[in-house]
Amino acid sequence: MLAAGASLALLGTSAARAQPSRDAPRELRRLVAANRILANEGVVDAFGHVSVRDPQNRERFWLSRSRSPALVELDDLMEFTLDGTAVDARGRTPYGERVIHAAVYAARADVQSVVHNHAYEVLPFTITDEPLRPVVHTASVIGAKIPVWDIRTRFGATDMLVRSIEQGRDLAATLADNTCLLIRGHGAVVAGASLERAVLTAIYLQVNANVLLKALPLGSPEPLSAEEIERSSETQFSPLALDRSWEYFCQRAGVDPG
Amino acid sequence: MLAAGASLALLGTSAARAQPSRDAPRELRRLVAANRILANEGVVDAFGHVSVRDPQNRERFWLSRSRSPALVELDDLMEFTLDGTAVDARGRTPYGERVIHAAVYAARADVQSVVHNHAYEVLPFTITDEPLRPVVHTASVIGAKIPVWDIRTRFGATDMLVRSIEQGRDLAATLADNTCLLIRGHGAVVAGASLERAVLTAIYLQVNANVLLKALPLGSPEPLSAEEIERSSETQFSPLALDRSWEYFCQRAGVDPG
Amino acid sequence: MLAAGASLALLGTSAARAQPSRDAPRELRRLVAANRILANEGVVDAFGHVSVRDPQNRERFWLSRSRSPALVELDDLMEFTLDGTAVDARGRTPYGERVIHAAVYAARADVQSVVHNHAYEVLPFTITDEPLRPVVHTASVIGAKIPVWDIRTRFGATDMLVRSIEQGRDLAATLADNTCLLIRGHGAVVAGASLERAVLTAIYLQVNANVLLKALPLGSPEPLSAEEIERSSETQFSPLALDRSWEYFCQRAGVDPG
Amino acid sequence: MLAAGASLALLGTSAARAQPSRDAPRELRRLVAANRILANEGVVDAFGHVSVRDPQNRERFWLSRSRSPALVELDDLMEFTLDGTAVDARGRTPYGERVIHAAVYAARADVQSVVHNHAYEVLPFTITDEPLRPVVHTASVIGAKIPVWDIRTRFGATDMLVRSIEQGRDLAATLADNTCLLIRGHGAVVAGASLERAVLTAIYLQVNANVLLKALPLGSPEPLSAEEIERSSETQFSPLALDRSWEYFCQRAGVDPG
Repeated sequence: MLAAGASLALLGTSAARAQPSRDAPRELRRLVAANRILANEGVVDAFGHVSVRDPQNRERFWLSRSRSPALVELDDLMEFTLDGTAVDARGRTPYGERVIHAAVYAARADVQSVVHNHAYEVLPFTITDEPLRPVVHTASVIGAKIPVWDIRTRFGATDMLVRSIEQGRDLAATLADNTCLLIRGHGAVVAGASLERAVLTAIYLQVNANVLLKALPLGSPEPLSAEEIERSSETQFSPLALDRSWEYFCQRAGVDPG
Repeated sequence: MLAAGASLALLGTSAARAQPSRDAPRELRRLVAANRILANEGVVDAFGHVSVRDPQNRERFWLSRSRSPALVELDDLMEFTLDGTAVDARGRTPYGERVIHAAVYAARADVQSVVHNHAYEVLPFTITDEPLRPVVHTASVIGAKIPVWDIRTRFGATDMLVRSIEQGRDLAATLADNTCLLIRGHGAVVAGASLERAVLTAIYLQVNANVLLKALPLGSPEPLSAEEIERSSETQFSPLALDRSWEYFCQRAGVDPG
Repeated sequence: MLAAGASLALLGTSAARAQPSRDAPRELRRLVAANRILANEGVVDAFGHVSVRDPQNRERFWLSRSRSPALVELDDLMEFTLDGTAVDARGRTPYGERVIHAAVYAARADVQSVVHNHAYEVLPFTITDEPLRPVVHTASVIGAKIPVWDIRTRFGATDMLVRSIEQGRDLAATLADNTCLLIRGHGAVVAGASLERAVLTAIYLQVNANVLLKALPLGSPEPLSAEEIERSSETQFSPLALDRSWEYFCQRAGVDPG
Repeated sequence: MLAAGASLALLGTSAARAQPSRDAPRELRRLVAANRILANEGVVDAFGHVSVRDPQNRERFWLSRSRSPALVELDDLMEFTLDGTAVDARGRTPYGERVIHAAVYAARADVQSVVHNHAYEVLPFTITDEPLRPVVHTASVIGAKIPVWDIRTRFGATDMLVRSIEQGRDLAATLADNTCLLIRGHGAVVAGASLERAVLTAIYLQVNANVLLKALPLGSPEPLSAEEIERSSETQFSPLALDRSWEYFCQRAGVDPG
């Protein structure tokens, strides 16, 4: 990976960003780590992706070229505008669904990172009426309300992918100011105030779904209350908890905590 | 593995195929990779097999000798005619169920690769009335209809294996023009327009079964519509998606993408 | 491991067995492999054990000293009489439940190997009325009938372990001429006509339980018919299938197929 | 790790404990092993912790600084008083929930080790009315009664963490003289008469929950009787069983049995 302060020429940055601060490479190194972590935890498989807003230019975000997250390297990272246009593609093919990221960043100034995934434990909640709500404190960060978006509602029969910026905007409107959103028969979107938060939220969205799937046949699982969700979220996103889990998931994935 | 253009003498080809194009070794190297991928993803265990039609001679196909897919090497690959006869056995023992492959290739000119497997998540759908249908977009490739074949219907009490070419033909007739077929109390057959497609379809058949098993206790899972299945299949089999997932599954299995 | 023909002095054999054939070490090397395989497949955890009847002396059997199967080495193997007495303990502590093995060998001349285990997928069938019966052909070898033995019936409240030869004999009487037996709130016993058969049966008992657990919430799983079980068992225990799976499970466990 | 008899200066002991016996380092080395074992078995993930009472000073206990158990090293271990105050923090940040451990040691003279965890199989029993009771003999050690504590009952809406010594004492009062306790929407607490017992109990609490989750859809699982639980617990905690399983779980976690 790129050492802090190394030339950003390696990163495919455009001429407009010729003198970035040292923060940028760290954010990109962490984006590579995030890809590996999400793959290692089974949150993504061959498909799924994670992006981070450019810390220097809030109208841009970074996302891998079309490649499975387990394999993403620094050279795969591409920069995009908030309508999903590649700034400097250099022949690399982007993900078709980069517009999910673009539209969420455009709609939500508070969001610094977006994960899109198809975790197998989460998918059942995209095809049934059973609501996915936080039932354990480590998952309070997924938020009290998780809306479900169905591409069919406004766009009819499609190939199920979010391909146009209009579709992305419609999805972002349904997400509103929530943290997570489910897509019918497809997967989930997680929006975070930082890369680490988005990654952790995506992991514990899967954990919560796992626990809920196991609990539902036993009776009516009791969800956390709105106040518990709010207070517990603050704690789970405190440096004490966030740093501990970032170090842990990096070690499991065999990547440098950055 | 064999380098492109290496002597096919190593591959046990018959005298009639003395000057094959360079395509053949690549297809066989990929067939070895396919065996390892299916084993690594748990689609096959000690049992199950995958074959590929000979790109030079459409009346022939390649399949390992009787060996667990996790262990298959290039020298294990044997060539068969479309009635299941080994072309050049050289003392190697073939799988008893090679006739599944033979009969599907004979019946379906569009099929280039066949997978037969007993994935544990798929098996419940072979012994209950619950239909296995695509509920998530990555699994749209399994197709709208998955028929179930019961060897008992025409052949009475057997050892459950598909052993004769007549049994294979009966199975192929039930498969008809679908992509997947379930065998009661036994497993599945997947037919693909390429080796990569057959492998991916077998993997996502398992993923879809996994998601459906988790979703069924939650209510009535909503399947993809016929049009969504058709459109999404095209997307999932586009080079963008197919190359990405082939690279991913090869890396997980520790094999060269070929 | 011991090379074929190496001195049996290493194996703790009694003076009465001073000139064994070369078969004995092979059987013992395979017994070590069987321990590792069962651990690697999750059939046993910290607890559980596997034994083999002495090929030279049908009134004796071999079983590890009290040690988790994942860790068993050749020097851990001890010889026992058919009432569970160690022939040459050399200070090694035997498993408390060796009488299960002793009693089954005493009652069943056709049995060459016994597995006792607590596989997590099998345990639910020991504490509910749901019968464990073969529903997939690879598991036909578990047999049409699997009786359940409850130590309470004749011995009242105990520590749940089979500790006396009388308890072992009562268990063996319930096993009768079946291949598998369940113990209420405890685990399973598998009896095989060879070490390889017992190991494979224990593995596919777990697979069948896994499939049945997944299928039951979907409706009424259709079991194999009695004739299918009989015919399929013969096939699954043919050298073609047995050698293939032994090689596979050895490779997964990282042990020599012997 | 620290060799037996090495200087305790490395361990951050306070001046008052300048001449400890050789037992202390062994206990601490085993505490590191316990952290790794619980992580390796999935009993803890990024969160959860395990402590041991100081064998020299019963008013003190040892617990890692705030770090995921998979990563804990000897230098991370901190000593605390029974109100949760660090004896010699040396700048290290403790877990917020150290008061769980402090309060249980203060209330229970028989307890030498405490585990707090959020095992995914256990969590469903913290949010439904289904009681978690031992159904298999290896799990008899979890005890006949497992109370559920809800922080809301006395402390209202919180961030769900046990943060004050008062909360810890309330939890310990609900635990009473039982071995395990569940915390609503949060996790479990396990109290053991030794480190090895606490670790084993936490592992088999998870195993028992796993088996019970699988059994419940099949009917009414039959629990062990009170007398069976008592007798089986004694056996499972005998040196024969305890040493065997400690060796096994150490080997799986890649740590020295100590």
